[in-house]
Amino acid sequence: IANKNLLLMPGDGIGPEVMTQAKRVLNWLQETKRASFNIEEELVGGASIDAHGVPLTDAALAKAKAADAVLFGSVGGPKWDKVPFNIRPEAGLLKLRSELQVFANLRPAKVFDALAAASSLKPDLVRGLDIMIVRECIGGIYFGEPRGIETLPNGEQKGVNTEVYTTHEIQRVGRVAFELARKRQNRVCSVEKANVMEAGLLWRQVMTKLKAEEFPDVELSHMYADNCAMQLAKNPKQFDVIVTGNLFGDILSDLAAMLTGSLGLLPSATLGAKDASGRIPGFYEPIHGSAPDIAGKGVANPLAEVLSLAMLLRYSFDMQEDADAIEAAVERVLAKAGRTPDIKAEGRPTISTSEMGDALIAEL
Amino acid sequence: IANKNLLLMPGDGIGPEVMTQAKRVLNWLQETKRASFNIEEELVGGASIDAHGVPLTDAALAKAKAADAVLFGSVGGPKWDKVPFNIRPEAGLLKLRSELQVFANLRPAKVFDALAAASSLKPDLVRGLDIMIVRECIGGIYFGEPRGIETLPNGEQKGVNTEVYTTHEIQRVGRVAFELARKRQNRVCSVEKANVMEAGLLWRQVMTKLKAEEFPDVELSHMYADNCAMQLAKNPKQFDVIVTGNLFGDILSDLAAMLTGSLGLLPSATLGAKDASGRIPGFYEPIHGSAPDIAGKGVANPLAEVLSLAMLLRYSFDMQEDADAIEAAVERVLAKAGRTPDIKAEGRPTISTSEMGDALIAEL
Ligand SMILES: CC(C)[C@H](C(=O)O)[C@@H](O)C(=O)O
Ligand SMILES: CC(C)[C@H](C(=O)O)[C@@H](O)C(=O)O
Repeated sequence: IANKNLLLMPGDGIGPEVMTQAKRVLNWLQETKRASFNIEEELVGGASIDAHGVPLTDAALAKAKAADAVLFGSVGGPKWDKVPFNIRPEAGLLKLRSELQVFANLRPAKVFDALAAASSLKPDLVRGLDIMIVRECIGGIYFGEPRGIETLPNGEQKGVNTEVYTTHEIQRVGRVAFELARKRQNRVCSVEKANVMEAGLLWRQVMTKLKAEEFPDVELSHMYADNCAMQLAKNPKQFDVIVTGNLFGDILSDLAAMLTGSLGLLPSATLGAKDASGRIPGFYEPIHGSAPDIAGKGVANPLAEVLSLAMLLRYSFDMQEDADAIEAAVERVLAKAGRTPDIKAEGRPTISTSEMGDALIAEL
Repeated sequence: IANKNLLLMPGDGIGPEVMTQAKRVLNWLQETKRASFNIEEELVGGASIDAHGVPLTDAALAKAKAADAVLFGSVGGPKWDKVPFNIRPEAGLLKLRSELQVFANLRPAKVFDALAAASSLKPDLVRGLDIMIVRECIGGIYFGEPRGIETLPNGEQKGVNTEVYTTHEIQRVGRVAFELARKRQNRVCSVEKANVMEAGLLWRQVMTKLKAEEFPDVELSHMYADNCAMQLAKNPKQFDVIVTGNLFGDILSDLAAMLTGSLGLLPSATLGAKDASGRIPGFYEPIHGSAPDIAGKGVANPLAEVLSLAMLLRYSFDMQEDADAIEAAVERVLAKAGRTPDIKAEGRPTISTSEMGDALIAEL
């Protein structure tokens, strides 16, 4: 097993707490000789602002680029509310995604059997749910120019952001969605507001052409973003793979995750294109945020971070068996161990972040 | 009772069917001498494209501007999928909103007692739910320039839309939200993506200042749009009034409406600023769309259109008692009559659009 370079970026809020448990799983992988990693760690977000004045240093970025994969925690919190916009904590995350060129953010919304009752939706609507949302991640209104706040001659201010998508940007994320669908139920739903936005109209046209030319075997449907939010709330199981832009993906994937009732359990993988040496840049983070309200209390659920590590093993290191082993251990822990407060259930003791880590290591 | 000028614009899909039932209520108001209206009717959307080649004629727009209030149905459908972007059915609706300068779209998400079980959310989470979403409606990325699709030198295409908000645009819709909150639970939650978009950052700053200067008595909180989608799905009752921009408002209000389980029941009012003569332009439409899949079958629920008429009486004509009477009749119909398929319930016969109208008129 070759030595893999892994960069850990715990970030802010509950990020460091959940990362600590993911590190225990990494240790387990090394101690049991399943793998050997060169592991480094870097600050990002508010933690990096506090130490270095910027949310991502050039040195940290260079290490992320050099690494074979990056495991990320979460960034942001009220502590940095007054920081200037261009160096706010989130800018560190966005710069990482953009500089690593990881354009396809894979966000599974999956309901764990043991947790169907935890959803705010009626159990029948979510039991067995397994959607994959593919969110374009380095384009759209998050990065489009012009942007900024300017003062008008009359003293008013004007805030501007620009949604931009090109054929190429749409195609490459579209291909990821179609490829994934082929390994699943073979259905892609492409989401935009083509009835209101030209950028959405182009999105729809490019997806339609891509399907016809390269994926005639995959079913493609189109849906407006507002309707998609409704359909997710009404009957989420109608979806297999959803592909959408950065902003709609942000909202719809969070919504889908919340509907599973398992937000503290959901990982994500963000992948780029294969480079000349055959390497695919991979960036892994839980769907949940930094949750400042519970940070430092030792009550956060570490399983989303651990499952992000499992995705990392699967997609970046091709370690299918170890990924399977971790995912199976998580299922067993959910079936019998105590629960962190986010997924608390009658008859189950409430346990802490580190106790959840204990339970997981015991299962492994 | 003065003669009021009312323009009806049924539009496409189920629009004409549900409007027919609203007209019966108008007749009832006139026959019982409660009011006397000058009622006109105009085509809009696909119906206008078919007749006149454009989704809104100048004549129809002029009538809408001259009217004291406009009651709208819905527009759009697959029949017009190939129509050029600038004359698609939705362009008629957007032009109406924009030309009438109705900037504040009031979208209540309310759960009718008889329908708490119809929600896809667990009944406890929605029983008694009553949120008001105030959506900015004539600005933001729906209308911002530059916009369009251009071909790049390398042959690729680029789709562009622009999110723009000015101090003035944010203030005027913010005031509507704060005023409404004062008559409710006195809490406003302002929603944007200030962590990613400068337009959202300006939105947050303007709202904060507006509260401090003009509404110190109203509670103001801020939430990111992705989190708001999650919070709506998790625990919608935490909200009183939500105020947000055009695009987020589109998605979040549809989501909230769906969560009530009563989409076919939810009306909306879109209001402008008082003009020199004291008149406030008012535009009323159901939250639901044209529902092409069930159009023409006589099964659409007409109550959202009828309740939009009630809102019209309330906000534009100050006919509080008649609005109350209609709303109370709707509650009674829901409590005992049959149900249209969208809200079907065990033990209740399934009835058609016109039978629902019959039941309502009988109650009135
Ligand atoms: C923290 C924030 C910048 C980020 C985003 O909007 O992309 C987050 O919400 C996410 O979805 O990963
Ligand atoms: C039909 C469409 C243009 C419209 C919108 O996006 O505003 C609709 O979704 C709505 O919410 O009224």
